[in-house]
Amino acid sequence: MKRTTMKSILLNVASGRLSALEAERLLKVSAGKHHIDHDVCLDTGREHRTGFPEAVFGAGKSVEQIVKAFFGLMDQQGKALATRCSPDALAALKKKNPKVQIHELSGMAWFSEKPVKTRGLVAIAAAGTSDLRVAEEAGLTLEFAGIGVERVYDIGVAGIHRLLDRLPVFHQADAAIVVAGMEGALPSVLGGLTGIPLIAVPTSVGYGAGLQGLSALLTMLNSCAPGLAVVNIDNGFGAAVAVIRIMKGRNR
Amino acid sequence: MKRTTMKSILLNVASGRLSALEAERLLKVSAGKHHIDHDVCLDTGREHRTGFPEAVFGAGKSVEQIVKAFFGLMDQQGKALATRCSPDALAALKKKNPKVQIHELSGMAWFSEKPVKTRGLVAIAAAGTSDLRVAEEAGLTLEFAGIGVERVYDIGVAGIHRLLDRLPVFHQADAAIVVAGMEGALPSVLGGLTGIPLIAVPTSVGYGAGLQGLSALLTMLNSCAPGLAVVNIDNGFGAAVAVIRIMKGRNR
Amino acid sequence: MKRTTMKSILLNVASGRLSALEAERLLKVSAGKHHIDHDVCLDTGREHRTGFPEAVFGAGKSVEQIVKAFFGLMDQQGKALATRCSPDALAALKKKNPKVQIHELSGMAWFSEKPVKTRGLVAIAAAGTSDLRVAEEAGLTLEFAGIGVERVYDIGVAGIHRLLDRLPVFHQADAAIVVAGMEGALPSVLGGLTGIPLIAVPTSVGYGAGLQGLSALLTMLNSCAPGLAVVNIDNGFGAAVAVIRIMKGRNR
Amino acid sequence: MKRTTMKSILLNVASGRLSALEAERLLKVSAGKHHIDHDVCLDTGREHRTGFPEAVFGAGKSVEQIVKAFFGLMDQQGKALATRCSPDALAALKKKNPKVQIHELSGMAWFSEKPVKTRGLVAIAAAGTSDLRVAEEAGLTLEFAGIGVERVYDIGVAGIHRLLDRLPVFHQADAAIVVAGMEGALPSVLGGLTGIPLIAVPTSVGYGAGLQGLSALLTMLNSCAPGLAVVNIDNGFGAAVAVIRIMKGRNR
Amino acid sequence: MKRTTMKSILLNVASGRLSALEAERLLKVSAGKHHIDHDVCLDTGREHRTGFPEAVFGAGKSVEQIVKAFFGLMDQQGKALATRCSPDALAALKKKNPKVQIHELSGMAWFSEKPVKTRGLVAIAAAGTSDLRVAEEAGLTLEFAGIGVERVYDIGVAGIHRLLDRLPVFHQADAAIVVAGMEGALPSVLGGLTGIPLIAVPTSVGYGAGLQGLSALLTMLNSCAPGLAVVNIDNGFGAAVAVIRIMKGRNR
Amino acid sequence: MKRTTMKSILLNVASGRLSALEAERLLKVSAGKHHIDHDVCLDTGREHRTGFPEAVFGAGKSVEQIVKAFFGLMDQQGKALATRCSPDALAALKKKNPKVQIHELSGMAWFSEKPVKTRGLVAIAAAGTSDLRVAEEAGLTLEFAGIGVERVYDIGVAGIHRLLDRLPVFHQADAAIVVAGMEGALPSVLGGLTGIPLIAVPTSVGYGAGLQGLSALLTMLNSCAPGLAVVNIDNGFGAAVAVIRIMKGRNR
Amino acid sequence: MKRTTMKSILLNVASGRLSALEAERLLKVSAGKHHIDHDVCLDTGREHRTGFPEAVFGAGKSVEQIVKAFFGLMDQQGKALATRCSPDALAALKKKNPKVQIHELSGMAWFSEKPVKTRGLVAIAAAGTSDLRVAEEAGLTLEFAGIGVERVYDIGVAGIHRLLDRLPVFHQADAAIVVAGMEGALPSVLGGLTGIPLIAVPTSVGYGAGLQGLSALLTMLNSCAPGLAVVNIDNGFGAAVAVIRIMKGRNR
Amino acid sequence: MKRTTMKSILLNVASGRLSALEAERLLKVSAGKHHIDHDVCLDTGREHRTGFPEAVFGAGKSVEQIVKAFFGLMDQQGKALATRCSPDALAALKKKNPKVQIHELSGMAWFSEKPVKTRGLVAIAAAGTSDLRVAEEAGLTLEFAGIGVERVYDIGVAGIHRLLDRLPVFHQADAAIVVAGMEGALPSVLGGLTGIPLIAVPTSVGYGAGLQGLSALLTMLNSCAPGLAVVNIDNGFGAAVAVIRIMKGRNR
Repeated sequence: MKRTTMKSILLNVASGRLSALEAERLLKVSAGKHHIDHDVCLDTGREHRTGFPEAVFGAGKSVEQIVKAFFGLMDQQGKALATRCSPDALAALKKKNPKVQIHELSGMAWFSEKPVKTRGLVAIAAAGTSDLRVAEEAGLTLEFAGIGVERVYDIGVAGIHRLLDRLPVFHQADAAIVVAGMEGALPSVLGGLTGIPLIAVPTSVGYGAGLQGLSALLTMLNSCAPGLAVVNIDNGFGAAVAVIRIMKGRNR
Repeated sequence: MKRTTMKSILLNVASGRLSALEAERLLKVSAGKHHIDHDVCLDTGREHRTGFPEAVFGAGKSVEQIVKAFFGLMDQQGKALATRCSPDALAALKKKNPKVQIHELSGMAWFSEKPVKTRGLVAIAAAGTSDLRVAEEAGLTLEFAGIGVERVYDIGVAGIHRLLDRLPVFHQADAAIVVAGMEGALPSVLGGLTGIPLIAVPTSVGYGAGLQGLSALLTMLNSCAPGLAVVNIDNGFGAAVAVIRIMKGRNR
Repeated sequence: MKRTTMKSILLNVASGRLSALEAERLLKVSAGKHHIDHDVCLDTGREHRTGFPEAVFGAGKSVEQIVKAFFGLMDQQGKALATRCSPDALAALKKKNPKVQIHELSGMAWFSEKPVKTRGLVAIAAAGTSDLRVAEEAGLTLEFAGIGVERVYDIGVAGIHRLLDRLPVFHQADAAIVVAGMEGALPSVLGGLTGIPLIAVPTSVGYGAGLQGLSALLTMLNSCAPGLAVVNIDNGFGAAVAVIRIMKGRNR
Repeated sequence: MKRTTMKSILLNVASGRLSALEAERLLKVSAGKHHIDHDVCLDTGREHRTGFPEAVFGAGKSVEQIVKAFFGLMDQQGKALATRCSPDALAALKKKNPKVQIHELSGMAWFSEKPVKTRGLVAIAAAGTSDLRVAEEAGLTLEFAGIGVERVYDIGVAGIHRLLDRLPVFHQADAAIVVAGMEGALPSVLGGLTGIPLIAVPTSVGYGAGLQGLSALLTMLNSCAPGLAVVNIDNGFGAAVAVIRIMKGRNR
Repeated sequence: MKRTTMKSILLNVASGRLSALEAERLLKVSAGKHHIDHDVCLDTGREHRTGFPEAVFGAGKSVEQIVKAFFGLMDQQGKALATRCSPDALAALKKKNPKVQIHELSGMAWFSEKPVKTRGLVAIAAAGTSDLRVAEEAGLTLEFAGIGVERVYDIGVAGIHRLLDRLPVFHQADAAIVVAGMEGALPSVLGGLTGIPLIAVPTSVGYGAGLQGLSALLTMLNSCAPGLAVVNIDNGFGAAVAVIRIMKGRNR
Repeated sequence: MKRTTMKSILLNVASGRLSALEAERLLKVSAGKHHIDHDVCLDTGREHRTGFPEAVFGAGKSVEQIVKAFFGLMDQQGKALATRCSPDALAALKKKNPKVQIHELSGMAWFSEKPVKTRGLVAIAAAGTSDLRVAEEAGLTLEFAGIGVERVYDIGVAGIHRLLDRLPVFHQADAAIVVAGMEGALPSVLGGLTGIPLIAVPTSVGYGAGLQGLSALLTMLNSCAPGLAVVNIDNGFGAAVAVIRIMKGRNR
Repeated sequence: MKRTTMKSILLNVASGRLSALEAERLLKVSAGKHHIDHDVCLDTGREHRTGFPEAVFGAGKSVEQIVKAFFGLMDQQGKALATRCSPDALAALKKKNPKVQIHELSGMAWFSEKPVKTRGLVAIAAAGTSDLRVAEEAGLTLEFAGIGVERVYDIGVAGIHRLLDRLPVFHQADAAIVVAGMEGALPSVLGGLTGIPLIAVPTSVGYGAGLQGLSALLTMLNSCAPGLAVVNIDNGFGAAVAVIRIMKGRNR
Repeated sequence: MKRTTMKSILLNVASGRLSALEAERLLKVSAGKHHIDHDVCLDTGREHRTGFPEAVFGAGKSVEQIVKAFFGLMDQQGKALATRCSPDALAALKKKNPKVQIHELSGMAWFSEKPVKTRGLVAIAAAGTSDLRVAEEAGLTLEFAGIGVERVYDIGVAGIHRLLDRLPVFHQADAAIVVAGMEGALPSVLGGLTGIPLIAVPTSVGYGAGLQGLSALLTMLNSCAPGLAVVNIDNGFGAAVAVIRIMKGRNR
């Protein structure tokens, strides 16, 4: 936010032209822009506006760009999270600051100066072992945000007793993220058995008519169990942020 | 089959040039063609070759064409079945011969001179009330072929206890046809709970991303429960014939 | 739920074989099946399991079927909701019981014996006037469930000042449903300006490359604003139930 | 299955609260879960429920995961089957136990402690040489299950005399699996010439408008020869399990 | 062609600046434009350039527009052909000039002042009765162009003996047009049995995964029988013009 | 724009807190919102911001809604334009004010209190007679905005001499809108023959593999003639506004 | 062809049961099957039936398989052609017999014992340099079949004068193959300028909305110039065989 | 252009048969063909006809072909531009002539003998850092054509204040190119805030339901902000040429 903009708003409040409330909104919208280079403009106000800070999306970025953005955010915010990083990028982050934590399977790195207090409980269900990469992207993002996670993996509908045995976890949770590839039927079945908020994540696991996850995506959008909400294919991070929005509401 | 063709084959057998077995094959392939008009060529040998007679596919045909084909087949075979007929076509068939049986919801008509003996038991599961049109196309075709049918309707996965309560039906059946629209998850769940042959039928019930049944079709093709076999969207007739092929094997 | 099943569960509790908690779960899963005809099986336990009762999906059902299901649910539950009804079906419901409330634009009918207490506040944003049919399906469903609604209509991104002027509504709300057709960009913009839970609903409004809503659906799934969750095209009802799941969590 | 669950069911039978039949069903549904790690949950009850044991789907798994799952299943079941394994994975399985049999072209590995008795006869037709990878996945799965196989390869419809010459094989078989890429017309032609159960498998062989097998899949779903049932693109394993379900019925 | 253009070309020939051959080409390209209204520009030179005159494509045109274009072409060329006309349009053409011939099923009308001499023989194969609308569009266009036609209808691959019995027709023909809906396999089979030029026409006959003819189109494009050439779905007219181009070459 | 907002901005200018330029921008963004009902929010500032006023998109609106919006805009702006209106809507507009001009083929209505001065010249090319509905939507919108139009219709590439003869029109024009259905090749050819700005409009004219205009759209997007810019299928209005943006630049 | 089959046919002729003509047909259908391994069944009768011998489709085959099939065909037929071979496969063919001719860009190899006489003239047009791979596949196949070829490359419609300058080539040719990627408009333009048979070949050249050649394919199928016939994407070989069918007709 | 053609045109002018204007047009159409090899035909007249010279499209060409075409154009035109070159190709161009300028990220190379004068101002907006490759392809092409460029990068709609802060740039520009991947909403928002010509470029940045840029493309085509014009996915070059056409008009 430009110094002059902020000053202008505050002067207006002082002179009575802006109410405190209106000024707060304006500041909220305008705040948070930090150029660390001619081509990178960090949105440092995002946590203030939306409750969760900007994260580094590593796919398609060079190692240098990821490092620059990750530590740029850390400097501004005291914490940072990166997703979809290559092993090389993870190693480079770790090398620059050994306190950075990494998780290879999901390609994630994160760091927080202040210790994170954990609250709430979110269940993360995954239909098969191949879906873990996506499930962990969701789980680690939640934990980074200070939300408790219970993992319930390998409970696909081909052996539905595995799901029925684990129902109590879902009845105790505040919300659930349900990850499934192939035909993606797990969220529908869970949606009929529990009333908690459910975020469904299709994965690209499968082949042939799976169409790289489109089939699972369509399944979830057409669920006969009402109240499922869906995110993009393999988007564990997005599902976690949707849940963070929900959990924030609970603590007001 | 042309008279001369048949004669030629038989003469060859008589002269030792063809074995009885080879002759039988040739007759099986060649038999069964009946022109009732310059543009309609009934395949009267289909029952001999494949175990189920040609049926009249009513969609896109005029009432006159349906009547002509239906009674043409009845004259040749002593029985006939028509699918996807308009109410007008059904009425016209009934009017011409009151013994013809009709079923409006599924658009079917059928007649058989000889009484049909019933054998075996096939379960027909339908996820929702809107799927009955397709489920009945399957059920009535099976009954026309002399196969016993148990209907298990309105057991979609949003209320999975309805399915679990009815599991014994599937354990007793020789095979099952599973009909579902929207996300089409019912066959996957059933596929993990029973080992009988399962033919899955996607229906065009749904809207938006249901894509007129494509979503349910993809779900069924990508099922994580192995051994599901799938037919075209809304193709209750095709599912029934697939089951008839299976049941025939049982009685050898 | 069959009487014998319930009895069996209770006896097990009495004899110490089942804990109270386990028994509660079993009852929750098994409860709620009511046959009102050979082909309709009401899921009367759905509210108990998921927090919101089964509703009548009117599309593709005859007037008679809708009336039968609506009053069947009302008899069992003391309340009922129907979506996507034709004007004829709405009139038939109203005629049978004048206390039934109807809304023609969205094709909805509802009735509740007990007065509904309102709690919470959900903002419903719609990009254009043509999206109101879907927005009202969401709004009326929320109100049926006792949730307060603030409508913010006709604020599409082509005139983004209309949205910026209404931001305070979103900052005060517990959650928002964002309805948009054509390119469906509204949820992305809102997602960057507020941290409340957002359920995005693509509509089939548009033409040509809009592909009956697929374009808006894809836009929402690919949003660069993280934490959007999406439902099927035109699925205002599903969005409302997703929010009901979220709101339930708030009141524990 | 948890010990306590099994005990509870049995006690209920003892006390007359459950019939033997009902108890059998419950045990069938609940049985068979074996955790070999926090993220792998083997469905060891699948053979009991569905007639064919869980197999290891090797695609997208590391060599270590495949080895762990394969020998985990072997320990529990005395036999194991893995599909879509890389040459490295096959070598690792062989190295750990030289009795494991492998087939490089189809990427399969299998082992059975007890010798398998062969019964029945299933014909496997393949349109072209490039389809053999898929055809062998089906054939080896059938042989693993103790079903006799006759391979009829390279009989595509561009030279239909090759198919006509081999018709006797299909007339003698209990069922057939028909594998074809490109335009996938072979199952339609066979479907009109024989009445045995036919499972059609589209392959991704082809280019351009073949759309990685979608074209062949659509051809098979739209067959004018009724009674074809179809599985996912390249899914030889699924076709084999569908046939195993059919063959099981024959032996009751 | 504008008078001045033609004059300019001829003057250039006269003065030796253009060879006769070059002038002929220029005239061929430039000739044939006739405005019958501000919005209709008849391409009266098309027959000269391509061997077949412009035809009236009736779909999406008003009765008045069709009549205006049809008789406009007749005035200029002494003959005219219209495709895809509504019954009303056909009646209007007939009413204006009773010598105009019409064919209701295919929606065609045509007239030629000079009697047409017939030469050559083209076989038109159609898989099913529902494909006749398209097959006749092809057949009548060929006959309008003076080419002999032999119709071979209702020979779909589900009863392949019907095709084998009619093979001699194809061996005697100069070329064949092969019309098929549903899975569209007929051209592939014929393509392996005969070496004459084959033009394949997919039709929109079918349902579900037939995708309004796309499935049949893909089948034909991916044919394993080389040398098939394909036209648009339901495009009997285009197939006929492709054959006319071929037949023209024969008579040089 | 709310009175208080405008006042606040102006006071800031007066006190020196805002420069005149910054104030102008703020007013430009904020101006122009007029509620004529709870569900319609006219964007009366759009002309100020973008150079062309909001128009009424008639598709999917009732006659009453169209009338309300059209005269609402006219009251605020002294002029109004409506597209895609039914004949009934056009008649209702005309009836309410006979000065409103209508054009049935393109479904348009417009009115302007002040006479419009014409400047510039835009060529509108249409490949076929069936494309005129879209071409006129473009042409009438341009004329409403005071831009001169030259129509060049029925010059599809099947008779390319018709296009070559009319090239001088394009060489004299400031820009061109090129409308084509079916294969949509006209813009590519024109794009190689002229250097003026070209806006390509695919139309839904065609059938089968035309996919309701998607084929023409793809053709135009993939043009080998660089510098074509494309709008949505049948979007003559959007093409005209794109040209209005271009023409505005010319007059600075 | 089995010896006994041939004998049986001939005996029937001798005895008068079969006419010479009928016998010829039967022999034509049945002839030509040569097993060179358990999984390869050469269709050595294809040239007799269709006028062009079976070719080796190299894609997805190992070098060994290609070599085996190529020389297998050569042994049986005295000539062979292979398409889509890797450089390694081409080298292996050349190494085994240095007389084999190869062409790296198109991945082709061919050999003929007897010298080929050339007749006729086919023009091969290619829109851009990147399309040559496909154009040469067509050209070399034609030359292998003894047909004269004139190449007309790099004449895309963005510079249409390049095409107009070369028109005489097309006016002298017996037929033309027109190869184009990106928007694929070249065949439409040519189709309006010449009346010779035209086979259009879309290529996968392009990016983005080119969809790997689907866009060009759709363009060609929807051509407003009637009489274009289309083959699969990149299928230069198929186009050549279609032309060979046409050229054969010319020489009767 | 052939010498004789040019002479013929000029003679016609001399003799009064052609007006100067008509001759100019003819020359414009015919000019500019330069064969540098049997398979490459440079369109050296393109700049004359369309205002921008032919550029080398490097994708799918060998290094040798790129070098040959680049310097071929440079010899004929005194300047050349190449897009989508590999690092190897860029290095080869630089090596052959060190004055050639290259830009690795966008894969471009260019050279101009005469210094380029800069005029006008075009804003290039990019939603994210990953879109720079495409944005620079546009920017460098504009600069090659002598048009001033202002880059406004990393202003995606998830942080819309970044865009609002930079609005003055767009108000001062003659036109803008707007580059965005993922959901591609940026052009819609900008389209409602400014009236300058806007060319929208979807990019393939994204994953899953992004469908390699198709989702962003659809968003832009369906924009509710009228007057956006769209080019192919990742087609920064095409967007630049569209703007060059617009800018040329401004300078008349």
